[in-house]
Amino acid sequence: MSRLSPAEIEGLLRAAPEWAVVGDAISRTFQFRDFAEAMRFVNQAAAHAERVQHHPDILIRWNRVTLTLSTHDAGGVTHKDVDFAHFAEGLKP
Amino acid sequence: MSRLSPAEIEGLLRAAPEWAVVGDAISRTFQFRDFAEAMRFVNQAAAHAERVQHHPDILIRWNRVTLTLSTHDAGGVTHKDVDFAHFAEGLKP
Repeated sequence: MSRLSPAEIEGLLRAAPEWAVVGDAISRTFQFRDFAEAMRFVNQAAAHAERVQHHPDILIRWNRVTLTLSTHDAGGVTHKDVDFAHFAEGLKP
Repeated sequence: MSRLSPAEIEGLLRAAPEWAVVGDAISRTFQFRDFAEAMRFVNQAAAHAERVQHHPDILIRWNRVTLTLSTHDAGGVTHKDVDFAHFAEGLKP
């Protein structure tokens, strides 16, 4: 799987504009009502990560969860990361 | 609850030497066999956080989990943070 260009990433994330390119990764912070709701989201994202064997970095700060996605083998952002971002967008807390 | 001095923190964490003072917080990175084991630890820590109503920042990077603890109301590290650190030390993956 080869890394995407900045223009490709931008095109693929047009439907998910809250994601930003940060270095060699894409990242978004989700906000929830409280910690319990944030943890439900984290566990749904974690289950998906195991299913697809692609694991975002996950930062939990009470009601906020930041997912950071990169494909280390490819040295940047690939379709795997974009697919995960779209999946996360579809999660309901 | 008032913030502890660096000497007090050091004394209280003598039995948990892998914790470090980082700015106004204490922090430790735990390493596990894999992501699934890391997530079990995170969920145990999260359940405790809800019980004691004190929530660490939690960073998950595949098999590594970093807990960062600070008491925002006190502007630094208090007994609440040290207590949480000791609880986390006692968790089995």
